[in-house]
Amino acid sequence: MTPERFARIDQMLKRRQPDLTVCMEKVHKPHNLAAIVRTCDAVGISDIHAVWDEPKMKLSGHTATGSQNWVKVHAHDDVTNAIGALKQQGMQIIATNLSATAVDFRQIDYTKPTAILMGQEKDGITPEALALADQDVIIPMVGMVQSLNVSVATALMLYEAQRQREAAGLYQPADKITKQERDRIMFEGGH
Amino acid sequence: MTPERFARIDQMLKRRQPDLTVCMEKVHKPHNLAAIVRTCDAVGISDIHAVWDEPKMKLSGHTATGSQNWVKVHAHDDVTNAIGALKQQGMQIIATNLSATAVDFRQIDYTKPTAILMGQEKDGITPEALALADQDVIIPMVGMVQSLNVSVATALMLYEAQRQREAAGLYQPADKITKQERDRIMFEGGH
Ligand SMILES: C[S@@+](CC[C@H](N)C(=O)[O-])C[C@H]1O[C@@H](n2cnc3c(N)ncnc32)[C@H](O)[C@@H]1O
Ligand SMILES: C[S@@+](CC[C@H](N)C(=O)[O-])C[C@H]1O[C@@H](n2cnc3c(N)ncnc32)[C@H](O)[C@@H]1O
Repeated sequence: MTPERFARIDQMLKRRQPDLTVCMEKVHKPHNLAAIVRTCDAVGISDIHAVWDEPKMKLSGHTATGSQNWVKVHAHDDVTNAIGALKQQGMQIIATNLSATAVDFRQIDYTKPTAILMGQEKDGITPEALALADQDVIIPMVGMVQSLNVSVATALMLYEAQRQREAAGLYQPADKITKQERDRIMFEGGH
Repeated sequence: MTPERFARIDQMLKRRQPDLTVCMEKVHKPHNLAAIVRTCDAVGISDIHAVWDEPKMKLSGHTATGSQNWVKVHAHDDVTNAIGALKQQGMQIIATNLSATAVDFRQIDYTKPTAILMGQEKDGITPEALALADQDVIIPMVGMVQSLNVSVATALMLYEAQRQREAAGLYQPADKITKQERDRIMFEGGH
């Protein structure tokens, strides 16, 4: 590995946000998955979650432009288990939901450990997932369409979190992952 | 038209932002175009611009979920003409650009009449467009990928504008379009 690449990966790792994540419920279009993984990398997320009931999905290498090498997608076959695991990690569960009772997405404190639930392209979030969430939120819309594209909605959620975390100093370079994890990534990234 | 639909279109028109627009430079993937048009509708944009050098592109009806009926895409065959027309309307021209000299996208005042330039999926913004812009901006990224998906980047720009305009009271219902335009939309929307 060149010293430049080492320094770049090192800088990236020091800005990772291990207590921020996304859980996608059956999001299945490859271009949406690719765009979501790419945005996660850009805001410093290294691990995300996906609930899939079909045989394992694959990310398209092309449009994710390499981000799949840096963001690990953990597959779950059941949303209850997925959310259970996130709660075990002490995360608040925020569900994005097109409902009149959901609060504006900017009202949430995303500097807390947070998992953001995103729903399927056609059907949205399931009632099971909603029941397990701590709060549901909506991104305001004033037009005629009923919803945003799911990768767009994910990015808006994550960059609101980024804005709050930046203001709170959470992107200051720091060692937030274990040395073992760091060494593994450095080793794999060197190839 | 039912009274409910009339009221819905009326509410939508009163929140439109005629002095906010997007100009896409050769953005060509249908799923990106569809997602962009859908986001424009959601933040109250009724007219957007596209520079295309190929035979006229078509929006996929499916994923734009009807938003193409509410957002007009004006085609230009040359970016100089497109930007010239926007400047004639008194708009500041903000180019999104992955450059070290670009300023953070949140530093711009989007309550002013604003056109946001988005670049092509692979090649980004052309030097011609950059030279004509008033300012270039970047959305911060702390990961390993070099760029965000273009529909994601467009949405982040537009929802920053939405945040500022909401705070400035620009989404208060008001008659911002001509009666003639309003009647035309009501007529077409009734079918
Ligand atoms: C295309 S939408 C699903 C639409 C579905 N018909 C529904 O009513 O939920 C896919 C996902 O994108 C997210 N999403 C889209 N627009 C949103 C908005 N305005 N606010 C919050 N989440 C949104 C949600 O996660 C949603 O489940
Ligand atoms: C995939 S990018 C183009 C990448 C191209 N290789 C370049 O260097 O410009 C497509 C468009 O999305 C927008 N974009 C993507 N990420 C951005 C970011 N972080 N800041 C500002 N604009 C961005 C810009 O309009 C860009 O031209």
